[in-house]
Amino acid sequence: MSTENDKHVYDFSEGKKELKLLLGGKGANLAEMTNIGLNIPQGFTLTTATCLKYYEDPKKVMEIIKPEILDAITRLEKKYNKKFGDLKNPLLFSVRSGAPMSMPGMMDTVLNLGLNDESVKGVAEETNNDRFAYDSYRRFLQMFSDVVMGIELDHFEEILNSYKAKKGEDAKDTDLEVDDLKQIIEEYKALYQKKIGSPFPQTPQDQLFHSIDAVFKSWNNKRAITYRRMNKIPNYGTAVNVQVMVFGNKGWGSGTGVAFTRDPSTGEKRKFGEYLANAQGEDVVAGIRTPKTMEEMKEEFPKVYDELIGLMDKLEDHYKDMQDIEFTIEDGELFILQTRNGKRTPSAAVKIAVDMVKEGLITKEQAIMSINADSISDLLFKSIDPKADITVLAQGINASPGAVTGIAIFDSDKTEELATKENKNVILVRPQTKPDDVHGLYASVGVLTQFGGKTSHAAVVARGIGKPAVVGAQNIKIDLKNRQFTVGETVVKEGDYITIDGTTGKIIKGQVPLVFPELTKEFNELLDMTDDVKKLGIRANADTPTDAYKALEFGAKGIGLCRTEHMFMAQERLPVVQKMIMAKTTEERKEALDKILPMQKGDFYDIFKIMKGLPVTIRLLDPPLHEFLPDYTELMLEVQKLKLTNSITDEELKEKEDLIHTMRTLHEENPMMGLRGCRLGITWPEINEMQVKAIFQAACELKKENIDVKPEIMIPLVGMLSELKLVKDQLIKIAKETIESYNVDLNYKFGTMIEIPRAALVADKIASEAEFFSFGTNDLTQMTFGFSRDDAEGKFLPIYLEKGIMKENPFEALDQEGVGQLMQMAIKKGRGVRPDLKCGICGEHGGEPSSIDFAHRIGLNYVSCSPYRIPVARIAAAQANIRNKE
Amino acid sequence: MSTENDKHVYDFSEGKKELKLLLGGKGANLAEMTNIGLNIPQGFTLTTATCLKYYEDPKKVMEIIKPEILDAITRLEKKYNKKFGDLKNPLLFSVRSGAPMSMPGMMDTVLNLGLNDESVKGVAEETNNDRFAYDSYRRFLQMFSDVVMGIELDHFEEILNSYKAKKGEDAKDTDLEVDDLKQIIEEYKALYQKKIGSPFPQTPQDQLFHSIDAVFKSWNNKRAITYRRMNKIPNYGTAVNVQVMVFGNKGWGSGTGVAFTRDPSTGEKRKFGEYLANAQGEDVVAGIRTPKTMEEMKEEFPKVYDELIGLMDKLEDHYKDMQDIEFTIEDGELFILQTRNGKRTPSAAVKIAVDMVKEGLITKEQAIMSINADSISDLLFKSIDPKADITVLAQGINASPGAVTGIAIFDSDKTEELATKENKNVILVRPQTKPDDVHGLYASVGVLTQFGGKTSHAAVVARGIGKPAVVGAQNIKIDLKNRQFTVGETVVKEGDYITIDGTTGKIIKGQVPLVFPELTKEFNELLDMTDDVKKLGIRANADTPTDAYKALEFGAKGIGLCRTEHMFMAQERLPVVQKMIMAKTTEERKEALDKILPMQKGDFYDIFKIMKGLPVTIRLLDPPLHEFLPDYTELMLEVQKLKLTNSITDEELKEKEDLIHTMRTLHEENPMMGLRGCRLGITWPEINEMQVKAIFQAACELKKENIDVKPEIMIPLVGMLSELKLVKDQLIKIAKETIESYNVDLNYKFGTMIEIPRAALVADKIASEAEFFSFGTNDLTQMTFGFSRDDAEGKFLPIYLEKGIMKENPFEALDQEGVGQLMQMAIKKGRGVRPDLKCGICGEHGGEPSSIDFAHRIGLNYVSCSPYRIPVARIAAAQANIRNKE
Repeated sequence: MSTENDKHVYDFSEGKKELKLLLGGKGANLAEMTNIGLNIPQGFTLTTATCLKYYEDPKKVMEIIKPEILDAITRLEKKYNKKFGDLKNPLLFSVRSGAPMSMPGMMDTVLNLGLNDESVKGVAEETNNDRFAYDSYRRFLQMFSDVVMGIELDHFEEILNSYKAKKGEDAKDTDLEVDDLKQIIEEYKALYQKKIGSPFPQTPQDQLFHSIDAVFKSWNNKRAITYRRMNKIPNYGTAVNVQVMVFGNKGWGSGTGVAFTRDPSTGEKRKFGEYLANAQGEDVVAGIRTPKTMEEMKEEFPKVYDELIGLMDKLEDHYKDMQDIEFTIEDGELFILQTRNGKRTPSAAVKIAVDMVKEGLITKEQAIMSINADSISDLLFKSIDPKADITVLAQGINASPGAVTGIAIFDSDKTEELATKENKNVILVRPQTKPDDVHGLYASVGVLTQFGGKTSHAAVVARGIGKPAVVGAQNIKIDLKNRQFTVGETVVKEGDYITIDGTTGKIIKGQVPLVFPELTKEFNELLDMTDDVKKLGIRANADTPTDAYKALEFGAKGIGLCRTEHMFMAQERLPVVQKMIMAKTTEERKEALDKILPMQKGDFYDIFKIMKGLPVTIRLLDPPLHEFLPDYTELMLEVQKLKLTNSITDEELKEKEDLIHTMRTLHEENPMMGLRGCRLGITWPEINEMQVKAIFQAACELKKENIDVKPEIMIPLVGMLSELKLVKDQLIKIAKETIESYNVDLNYKFGTMIEIPRAALVADKIASEAEFFSFGTNDLTQMTFGFSRDDAEGKFLPIYLEKGIMKENPFEALDQEGVGQLMQMAIKKGRGVRPDLKCGICGEHGGEPSSIDFAHRIGLNYVSCSPYRIPVARIAAAQANIRNKE
Repeated sequence: MSTENDKHVYDFSEGKKELKLLLGGKGANLAEMTNIGLNIPQGFTLTTATCLKYYEDPKKVMEIIKPEILDAITRLEKKYNKKFGDLKNPLLFSVRSGAPMSMPGMMDTVLNLGLNDESVKGVAEETNNDRFAYDSYRRFLQMFSDVVMGIELDHFEEILNSYKAKKGEDAKDTDLEVDDLKQIIEEYKALYQKKIGSPFPQTPQDQLFHSIDAVFKSWNNKRAITYRRMNKIPNYGTAVNVQVMVFGNKGWGSGTGVAFTRDPSTGEKRKFGEYLANAQGEDVVAGIRTPKTMEEMKEEFPKVYDELIGLMDKLEDHYKDMQDIEFTIEDGELFILQTRNGKRTPSAAVKIAVDMVKEGLITKEQAIMSINADSISDLLFKSIDPKADITVLAQGINASPGAVTGIAIFDSDKTEELATKENKNVILVRPQTKPDDVHGLYASVGVLTQFGGKTSHAAVVARGIGKPAVVGAQNIKIDLKNRQFTVGETVVKEGDYITIDGTTGKIIKGQVPLVFPELTKEFNELLDMTDDVKKLGIRANADTPTDAYKALEFGAKGIGLCRTEHMFMAQERLPVVQKMIMAKTTEERKEALDKILPMQKGDFYDIFKIMKGLPVTIRLLDPPLHEFLPDYTELMLEVQKLKLTNSITDEELKEKEDLIHTMRTLHEENPMMGLRGCRLGITWPEINEMQVKAIFQAACELKKENIDVKPEIMIPLVGMLSELKLVKDQLIKIAKETIESYNVDLNYKFGTMIEIPRAALVADKIASEAEFFSFGTNDLTQMTFGFSRDDAEGKFLPIYLEKGIMKENPFEALDQEGVGQLMQMAIKKGRGVRPDLKCGICGEHGGEPSSIDFAHRIGLNYVSCSPYRIPVARIAAAQANIRNKE
């Protein structure tokens, strides 16, 4: 053992906040508070290094540290003029674990350590407060037995409750009398003896060393090890804090409480707190009695109140953040036990940050860094009123955020009818949705499906049109025949009200009060602050004029992904699209495409016009064509039924069989890896040609109206230079012809998605033809891991996350090690050939903070995400720049 | 223009074979033959560099080179004592293109250049052979018009045939008389005038310069450019060879022919040749008359025969290879026009190579390099007799090699019945096969399907059990109801004979004579030679004892891939496997697995025993489980039918609906990217546990019998270290327990497949746990390109190959640029952590020569391929080592 580590014990007055790794979070904090002169019950900290040493040879280390601990106690005895183990006026301690990072599984607090059968009597006499003395001893017995010795807490609660019950139905702990407490103590000791096989330790030193030993051991219990492995927390070891007790349970002139320097739920600058008189420890949080307010404190403890108010300002000023303070009042004297940055709601966080900038307390950068970027997207959607009393019926996959209430309807036609004719709020409930259901999805207020994952049809469409969706709720059993669904015993019939929460995946029976989002002034101010701070550009994934408006409203500087397939799925277009797919000849196909052309042109015209010269990246048709066709099995069943019941003419049958044949020809075992993306354009060039014609006609018409347009054509699913070159050469020709025919000047770009691993591997070649790269991280993640999102999330991914094989869902937070490695490779190779190559992300990762940080670090130019994620992205992008400058 | 390139014309006597890039293949060869003293009609070559210069400024370059050409002609005039353009005894030339690599699209030969209306009379007089003179002029007119001027040949053939027709039904060209020829010539000239608008050029110099110009131009015609782009041939330019004519058509004392130094079809060391008297140029090859044999030549031209025999020995000795010689006899004098390495059948190639080593003519290495590795696998399978007169009905995908004849049967039960009870040769014909069809596949002699690609169920099973298969024959329409299939108008009824060729994909109506493979002594000698030469180890992909025997027979040194799913699909096991899949609890699943355990153990026991201590790499269960279940749509249709016709009891219905529910739960949108590989083992650990138990029990029992065993357990589809670690830790425990319970010593390894792009990216991490890497290049190719083999080959890959987007099918020849890059990365990272990491390929690329060459270059330890590809792999591995040493 090195000499450097020979100091195992630090008095609070010896530490500082910078020694967090050595003293643990709690120990460093106690030292810091001591340093700034707060009235802190003093004590000492055993270092984390001691804990690690302990694991080399527990017995030896305990022997080595004992004298140091006793020395520290001696110093405290002098300071407080009390003796540890004294029979009259003993010094008592609390013992707490305190690792450098807070983590579950670690040993809990033991209070009132040092009491025994004798000294409890002395304390009673000395304080002239029997109730206090026996209440403290009772608590100590319970905590030591539970926390240190591992006897189940339930046994103690049972005993305690049996005495409370004798006092009446609503009896509180304070209703127990001294004799009750004495009897409880006897029963506790008997229980201890029975469970452990020896009497409750009466020597204070034994109690202390036992407790310290237990803290050290708790560092390596199973739960802690698992947690550390899953969260990649290093093996720091834990510190142990031994602190002199102060007593909030010494009578009605004492108490314990919690205070916040600002309102943690709204962020308002108003001091907020709760306390209980004659209580100790966790009593306020545990809710054993209804706590009192700060106003009541002003009445009850005016001096303490004034002191606390003053301290709160001082602390906020010192820590430059809203503080959450734990305090104890012992006989009218205020002690601070803890202060830390307070937890707050997302809207409070925004208000506090912006206010503090205005108050000159923090910088813009600090304000931005104080926000949990991810959580602020919750501010944009309706949510279930947290005060509402709800019973969750089932849990599905949260596929599109927001909560909504409506009547459950089991098919799309009826949904449309009820919604449009009777103005009902309808939630469409289906096993899954298909393109046939698009009109139902549009008419509904939200959708619930039994099958499918976050990329299922229902999920994609719902996110696209901004409606809440819960999908893959496998525990609901939909019975289409009887038009109802069941969850266990509960039956929801058609027309019954349900509520779904697409933010959390919850499904609730009946109507539930919802909370509406309110975009505050501060929210917009905060977003504006990000503009000076971030480097990454922010674009939106937007397929419709509505999306485009939303994107601008939230501050997007362009569209990074405009998917054209959505435009193909609109109800009035689908029949034409199906005709195009079923075409037997190129001519037939062109005929159908000619009908789609003006529709697509209209779409692009509107979007370009809204975006007023900001870049709009349009992805050419991407999905497998059978996505536009009805379900094969259902069609087969229909035909068989019609045949068996003789209700189909030969001519109709022929037509159906034709359809079946085409569907069979188009069928793919793995559509994700089939005829889609640029492969479609290579197989049937006329589809791409129509799209490019529509894009450039729309753009040129706007140019004629003197409105600026910046189209960027994105060719999806490229894996080889030759693919890109073939498609691009063909399309540039059409672009040029169109522009010439309008006789306008138009700047445009042709680029590609990087979403196939091979594209990243040969990015140098591809960059010779591509004017920009847009990383399609959804597909890239699928191909790099070799699993499809739908199948993974529906099957094994939950198991992977549960077993800790993966820490995060790679479809939510970008896999930097694998997928990210490919991205870095692609950027390096691509810019090696074309130094000004513009690179962005347009997968869903573009709106996820850790992925945005990565995007910043690897030098992307922009991220693109759904309109509702843009505020998150703006904050995360600013945070990334601040964090990585540091 | 550089001075270095100022020499544009090389006389044959100035060249040598090393100047192939400058003189083209033909020019260098003519020079070489001149150098070794053969009787070659002399001439000169215009260099390829001249051709490239020509493209800078055609007119100028033609002017520059003309004097050089005329000088060369003057030298030839002196040598042959004739004048170019002389009216009595003119020197005539042939003009031929000659690029460094032979390629289609280049200009053809022009013979007899220099004749005109006047000199043809002179020649007639001088040779006293009117027929010869006018025949030569007729030929020249035709060739020049067609080849140089691009007039369609058909027009000339029409004229010629009209004259032949007048001579009788079977008239030959030699039946034409001088007057006929004169009239033909007049008609030819008129045709020329009509098509070109000017008379046929009468000046020999003009004829020559025109021809040279046409050769240069042909280098950049569309066909040639496309071919070069597709085959990545550089822009070398072409040379032009101008050679003095000798005449095989000078009468019955002249002739022209072709001779081989060994039999090109058997490889036997016996001289072989064919010739025609009184003929010129391509007459022998074109088959205008039946050629005569070498025996007849011995009679007809005894002197020439002796000379030719002597020359053949000399040439073979010089070129160290079997020669294909073109010769002309002019008035009894033998001229050699060309000699080159002769084309031969695969079996001849083997015999010639081995014989030549024995004769001391070439080294082992040269022998091995002389073999086209790919083609020799044809020697192992039955094929359609090349002499048979067949009509191909349709073309499918060649999924499992070999040709076979049998009666078409449309379901598996009937196939089994007819095959086992009536001993019929049955070809199972299905839209596609499912696990339910395995008994039919086993009982059949081959399988034909309408749908699916090379990795479809039918294809995989057929290859596994070594039966011919043609799949995805989309032009056949199977009508199961009427038990027949149609192709256009042709109907094949159940019981009709058909023949399928799994090597080529051909489907033929009726019985066809087949040729049986014969493994010669030389074949085995050649394979044995590879052992001293190659570095790569060769293993087999073998799932059954039959495969294992075959693998040893062909010289495999272990099993590189033993797939266990095949074992699950055997007919008597499938119900148990299905029970295992449908199990509702872990207990139910274990119960089913307990029944499978002894079966699997038996499989492994047999294979280990056959492989006698050679390493056997066993892959744990890999495919998605629904592969073991019936078709969902079919099941739904069946249930609906039973319900509509009231032919099902409630109890049966319940059972069916249970099955439907399970299938729905297991259903995956993209099974290739779903719950399979190690994900199965993580989700249901009991499956892997059973397999590992079976492997180690089998191994330990053999150890007890003193038979050595080397199991290598391969965990499939790993993408993250954490997956591998979890599975491996769990399985090693079982392995150790099993070994302990048998109390034996057993060496074993745990390794992984690298078949997910991410695995290659994090191979350094994975190598910390994996004792070997086996590249699953099939899956790795799919994931790297982002397309599934089935869907790609059935849909867009043919278009990609046709359009030249890809040069080769990446599922056949490894994509070195993309997939190969990942492999190199994985090897580098893996060996960085574990320097002795054993790496191999077990995808189908392991049996493909260019992929084997790559495997050698990137330092793999072995390749593993199907037993029938092992000879190919051994030769290709040896070639790789020789080639890369050079």
